[in-house]
Amino acid sequence: MPAQLLKGKPVADAVKEELSAKIADLSFVPGLRFVRVGEDPASMSYVRGKQKMAESIGLDAQTHELPEETTQEELLALIEELNNDDNVDGILVQLPVPDHIDDTVVLEAINPEKDVDGFHPENVGRLWTGQESLLPCTPAGLIRIMDHYELPIQGQHVVIVGRSNIVGKPAAAVFLARSATVTIAHSRTLDLPALTKQADVIVAAVGIAGFIKADMVKEGVVALDVGLTRIDGKIVGDIHPDVAEKAAYLTPMPGGTGRMTVAMLMENTYNAAVRRRG
Amino acid sequence: MPAQLLKGKPVADAVKEELSAKIADLSFVPGLRFVRVGEDPASMSYVRGKQKMAESIGLDAQTHELPEETTQEELLALIEELNNDDNVDGILVQLPVPDHIDDTVVLEAINPEKDVDGFHPENVGRLWTGQESLLPCTPAGLIRIMDHYELPIQGQHVVIVGRSNIVGKPAAAVFLARSATVTIAHSRTLDLPALTKQADVIVAAVGIAGFIKADMVKEGVVALDVGLTRIDGKIVGDIHPDVAEKAAYLTPMPGGTGRMTVAMLMENTYNAAVRRRG
Repeated sequence: MPAQLLKGKPVADAVKEELSAKIADLSFVPGLRFVRVGEDPASMSYVRGKQKMAESIGLDAQTHELPEETTQEELLALIEELNNDDNVDGILVQLPVPDHIDDTVVLEAINPEKDVDGFHPENVGRLWTGQESLLPCTPAGLIRIMDHYELPIQGQHVVIVGRSNIVGKPAAAVFLARSATVTIAHSRTLDLPALTKQADVIVAAVGIAGFIKADMVKEGVVALDVGLTRIDGKIVGDIHPDVAEKAAYLTPMPGGTGRMTVAMLMENTYNAAVRRRG
Repeated sequence: MPAQLLKGKPVADAVKEELSAKIADLSFVPGLRFVRVGEDPASMSYVRGKQKMAESIGLDAQTHELPEETTQEELLALIEELNNDDNVDGILVQLPVPDHIDDTVVLEAINPEKDVDGFHPENVGRLWTGQESLLPCTPAGLIRIMDHYELPIQGQHVVIVGRSNIVGKPAAAVFLARSATVTIAHSRTLDLPALTKQADVIVAAVGIAGFIKADMVKEGVVALDVGLTRIDGKIVGDIHPDVAEKAAYLTPMPGGTGRMTVAMLMENTYNAAVRRRG
């Protein structure tokens, strides 16, 4: 029997509905600012999607579009302005930025209280030490999907393939915080299939199309696909379609985890606003 | 054949010797301040040992001993004073602090640049995102022992038992940064022996005497013992003595990882001083 699909839309819709009601109840309108540098078509499309969702739930969302030749100093000056603007609760600088700008410096310049991507070292550190923080959106979305479909997390062996700062490592943190047993595997892992075959839950986040094949997972696995590659204009995930025959649950790609990332960004904005404005 | 013992002393001595020479070459004397609250005998002994080692390598080391009834505000005021003292490069508040003091608040009050324990969320976040940081001492010591005895790390499957903020989680970060495959297991892990038997390197950090038994590890494992329990005045590790018959390498307890923790504290103080004073 093919896997049950863990579609992102119903989960994202539930989050949006809940947030819309909570935002309407506030005495102020939370402000979210997107900053995009250059003309990368994928980035433009991502930011448009986020902006649209933000507006649909009642946030004050605006996008700052900066030309490719923007200097790091100019970008930092804008961030400083947004940090100091009391009407702005969340700031998101869409990555990648052009090569002449150091993204580490940029991300650290954002006030951690407004860091709705959850990438600032202070938020990363608070996440890993079990304190309240703004969570990285993609990992937070994985947990939300699991919870929505009532799949167990505690005690499950979660094998994460990929160790990026954006997905792999923070996914380890959020699953560990929910008392999963967590393995982080990556390109230097010697016998990857031996590990992935043990996974109760597999998180694929390497960015290689079809990388996780059916013979690498066990019967009944929960497969969460985060990788994303565009092939001939088509979006393909890290998890090979054949895995659907063995997995009990599988996030579709597209239509799975990506939608949740955007929904979690909205939740972070709401949380950031409520925490900062008291 | 019983395991080769990975003694901490020769490694710590090598670190001390190197640091003594580097400190003597500086145009200033790095300052390290210990803060201890109350009369916990183990804490008193730890701080004395650290103070002694600091003096022996040429640091300006001083201990602030505060009475049990010290308020959180008083402790924070002292930290603020040390943060602002330009002659102080490292600040260590010995844990545990009395129950009426929130250790999270205290650790966050330390200037991250002087946080020689590596516990501040900003240092934790920098560690997990691959940036230069002050490393947590015990995990850093494990890596140093492995390197000293020329044991491979990249590609090895490191199974960490225990998920504390002080050892388990940061150990995952430092081994991952060296491209090990890392599993974090803990009290909610369902089939712990199945995981520990796969370990090329096992890190035991649960604080239960003799918890890791010979039938839980594979022949030839590298066993790093961080747990510490006092039984009838005797110090006992998390790794059962019988493991010595199966392991290829084993840190003795005492005389293994503990010494390295103190040595790494000294290295952090040197690094903090050089980075801050330019």
